[in-house]
Amino acid sequence: MADLARRIAVARGDEPADLVLKGGRVLSVFTREWLETDLAIADGWIAGLGEYDGAEAIDVRGRYLVPGFIDAHMHLESTKLLPDEFARLVLPFGTTAAVADPHEIANVLGVDGVHWLIDFCSELPLDVFFMAPSCVPASRFESPRRAFGDADLESLLRRRRVLGLAEMMNFPGVIAGDERELSKLALRGGDHADGHAPGVAGKQLNAYAAAGIHSDHEALTLEEGRERLRAGIWLLIREASMARNLQALVPLIAELGPSQIAFCTDDRDPDDILDDGHINGMVRKAVAAGVAPEDALVVATLNPARWHGLRDLGALAPGYRADLLVLPDLASFRPELVLKSGRRVGEFPRPEVPEWVRQSVRIAPLSRDDLAVPDCKRVRAIGLVPDQVVTESLVVDADTEGLAKIAVVERHHATGRVGLGFVHGSGLQRGALASTVAHDAHNIVVLGISDDDMLAAVARVVELSGGIVAVDEGRVAAECPLPVAGLLSVATLQDVISQSRACNDAAQALGWSGATPFLTVAFLALSVIPALKITDQGLVDVEKFELVPLCC
Amino acid sequence: MADLARRIAVARGDEPADLVLKGGRVLSVFTREWLETDLAIADGWIAGLGEYDGAEAIDVRGRYLVPGFIDAHMHLESTKLLPDEFARLVLPFGTTAAVADPHEIANVLGVDGVHWLIDFCSELPLDVFFMAPSCVPASRFESPRRAFGDADLESLLRRRRVLGLAEMMNFPGVIAGDERELSKLALRGGDHADGHAPGVAGKQLNAYAAAGIHSDHEALTLEEGRERLRAGIWLLIREASMARNLQALVPLIAELGPSQIAFCTDDRDPDDILDDGHINGMVRKAVAAGVAPEDALVVATLNPARWHGLRDLGALAPGYRADLLVLPDLASFRPELVLKSGRRVGEFPRPEVPEWVRQSVRIAPLSRDDLAVPDCKRVRAIGLVPDQVVTESLVVDADTEGLAKIAVVERHHATGRVGLGFVHGSGLQRGALASTVAHDAHNIVVLGISDDDMLAAVARVVELSGGIVAVDEGRVAAECPLPVAGLLSVATLQDVISQSRACNDAAQALGWSGATPFLTVAFLALSVIPALKITDQGLVDVEKFELVPLCC
Repeated sequence: MADLARRIAVARGDEPADLVLKGGRVLSVFTREWLETDLAIADGWIAGLGEYDGAEAIDVRGRYLVPGFIDAHMHLESTKLLPDEFARLVLPFGTTAAVADPHEIANVLGVDGVHWLIDFCSELPLDVFFMAPSCVPASRFESPRRAFGDADLESLLRRRRVLGLAEMMNFPGVIAGDERELSKLALRGGDHADGHAPGVAGKQLNAYAAAGIHSDHEALTLEEGRERLRAGIWLLIREASMARNLQALVPLIAELGPSQIAFCTDDRDPDDILDDGHINGMVRKAVAAGVAPEDALVVATLNPARWHGLRDLGALAPGYRADLLVLPDLASFRPELVLKSGRRVGEFPRPEVPEWVRQSVRIAPLSRDDLAVPDCKRVRAIGLVPDQVVTESLVVDADTEGLAKIAVVERHHATGRVGLGFVHGSGLQRGALASTVAHDAHNIVVLGISDDDMLAAVARVVELSGGIVAVDEGRVAAECPLPVAGLLSVATLQDVISQSRACNDAAQALGWSGATPFLTVAFLALSVIPALKITDQGLVDVEKFELVPLCC
Repeated sequence: MADLARRIAVARGDEPADLVLKGGRVLSVFTREWLETDLAIADGWIAGLGEYDGAEAIDVRGRYLVPGFIDAHMHLESTKLLPDEFARLVLPFGTTAAVADPHEIANVLGVDGVHWLIDFCSELPLDVFFMAPSCVPASRFESPRRAFGDADLESLLRRRRVLGLAEMMNFPGVIAGDERELSKLALRGGDHADGHAPGVAGKQLNAYAAAGIHSDHEALTLEEGRERLRAGIWLLIREASMARNLQALVPLIAELGPSQIAFCTDDRDPDDILDDGHINGMVRKAVAAGVAPEDALVVATLNPARWHGLRDLGALAPGYRADLLVLPDLASFRPELVLKSGRRVGEFPRPEVPEWVRQSVRIAPLSRDDLAVPDCKRVRAIGLVPDQVVTESLVVDADTEGLAKIAVVERHHATGRVGLGFVHGSGLQRGALASTVAHDAHNIVVLGISDDDMLAAVARVVELSGGIVAVDEGRVAAECPLPVAGLLSVATLQDVISQSRACNDAAQALGWSGATPFLTVAFLALSVIPALKITDQGLVDVEKFELVPLCC
């Protein structure tokens, strides 16, 4: 309260501010005006706009001052970076807050892992908020370390930095009125829930919204976006590395107004962020596509704060956090200066990474027999679709040219369970690719032409306590260690990027024909995206939502 | 959950709705479009827009369907009606929810009285939400039954229907950084606080906002409204019986966008509502003044819900409460049909009114001596300003023509404390007016020419256990009994209106020259509105914020 009293005294003009930004054009997100005025900061908060003096002053004449960007929905784990390194990456791009769904960590390390992650982020200069992972496992066909129950969600929802329920991915369950899904929404704090409703339309969408789920980041088309807004569903426009929807959807900002639209990145590769920016890149592209800068900025700041009920973020006004960007222009959206809680972001230490989060890979001994497929003429094969996470469900001759074998090896409890299948269209000619990143249960997925290489790749992944590996004729061609839960690196951004690129290059050297080999492989295990997927339990026909045999 | 499952089944189209409104034009508050479609209702909630069948159907072709109106800030007690009777009055006008600050009851009956009021409202077909009264007493110069402490506020803030802190009327205290005010804002739930900042501007306004208070309903001018919006303060446009700000402020809806503006009534007389409507009357006037109907409707529905975090109110979309109005046109805003939670509002019973809330008037014996003023030549006098709650602080000769005597008699603990003063400009020629409605502590205020009539008026008010009374030459000329806390009637709307009118007529017969005698008198005791006021403790110079003697 002494702090608050001082902030009020600074606002009154009775005490000097810590820092005054002099003479900039300050965006009022509430009125969409640019106000030419000073901005005074005290103890990390905005004290006031107007003429102020402070211990320090920065001349920002001719510059644009806007609130820090807020990512409305993302998964930290997609970056492969520990959150402190993620913060070092995105803060210079102006992202000062992110709302994370930690469901990858949740699948591997259980609720303890999520609590650890929340604690890990608590002292970072980036504000990381969390949504409680609502679908662990993603479906009954997946084997995480442990399924989440309502008590797990409750333990998370009680925490200050947990805002609600993360994306309700079991949309068929919600729409069908499955009691296990509805019970989550009835939890204290479950009335704020993010959605995930790919392709859901008409009365199915009404049913999803009737359950009380009022956001979705899976809209692809103007039509889908419009329908969501009309149904009272916040449109979280996504620009993920594998799912870029911004160009398609931004015309809705002008057509129907920005008031219920926010930006999110969902799943982003680290090199993608480095090359393209983060939320600031979305603002840049939106403005380049004709969106008014003020609207694009509101969609990137105030709106995600409003959707998530973050009352003191997303605006430059007294009583708001001094999360603030100084922009040289309204085209590049690359900030000259980023203030988080009123401070320049300097160096900051890595919080402790305990040993237990680095010991998550436990498999039963694996032999060639475990990779042996039944002898049959016609087999199911997962048909890759270039640059998409959806697949085709194919039935092909077992001796079809270019089929690769795929296996998912349970790695949480060393059960020895292995699911087997084939993949069509990878381009792979030899060797094997293995990864402990395999959505959402993150068992070990391994794809290969040679069983021996597949075994070698799995063995190396286990030695690393998790990671991604490319093996060529028994030799490790490239690797990216991901020891934290088998998902996150302890290396720097540059090392993670170069290791990831080396792995992708190695995969391409082995014949892989698409752009993102390991990301593609990681999604082949996700049993809730059509059409044919594979888990440690076997092949999953996602449309029928049942396990199906390899042989036809 | 069985209910929710059924609502979802109705939304899917797998079960018939309870009620379908067929073929109307449904306002999407999110996109500001009129959607021509059916609207299906199940168990009090909106299941979906689209083609639906139901147990009952109503043809609403050519009609406009809009969400029920929400009053963003009001005091139930101003209507003198028990809340059930208030509900009977405003529901037909389309108000389906109101956010009430019960600080009048709080001053008289303490926190128990507020809990009783919340309970009383819990089963009404009108949604009454509450804000915890933050300023009991309004100042140290007032004597309520008991001052509220933080524990009282906490007991209220824990309740489901209590949304935050009611208007922080001690704005000088907040701006000065008074620890007692800041401690309220630090309570759990105190981060949502309504403001009250009359005339506050510039750095003072920054200081108020810096404290975390982000609404105000006291703006009078475009300039003040603009300044509030730019400072991140929600502009609650008020149209109260004694303070009509709508015409002055509605141009801001077009100028700066409607997104942070809501309507409120603050203090409304019952006959004013009957004549002029409620929130619907504000929408009507706004549209008549040139505001787009869609914008005016958003300001009356979605926006108050957003400001107060009422996630399932204020919109016609699946997952929202079926609080819905059928309008014949976009000019009168007088609904043909009002549905609250999907049901037509029929008759409903009065909840219990316990005896203890009807026994609030306790005074020490009062004699002519108690009304005797010191003998002096020059006296202070409260100068009335026609139709305003502000007064002038005058110093006049004691024998000035037309001075009336005013007394405030402590009535909670029978202390015998009496404050004495004079009023200039009332027009009163003879008799006396007395009332237990005397903001905010609601001690007995009595104004008169004859001491005997003043004593008779007080005696009658005590006999009634509260109310307003006009006495002419020892005889009760008119009265309106207000036995509940001395603030609310147990009579019907029509009786309250006719009794109130009789009292006003009687006051005018005694010479009163303004429009609203008892409302004016009631505000003479409110020690936080300039310039000179009177409480049981004596005359208060509001600008100096100190007690001042009668004689000069």
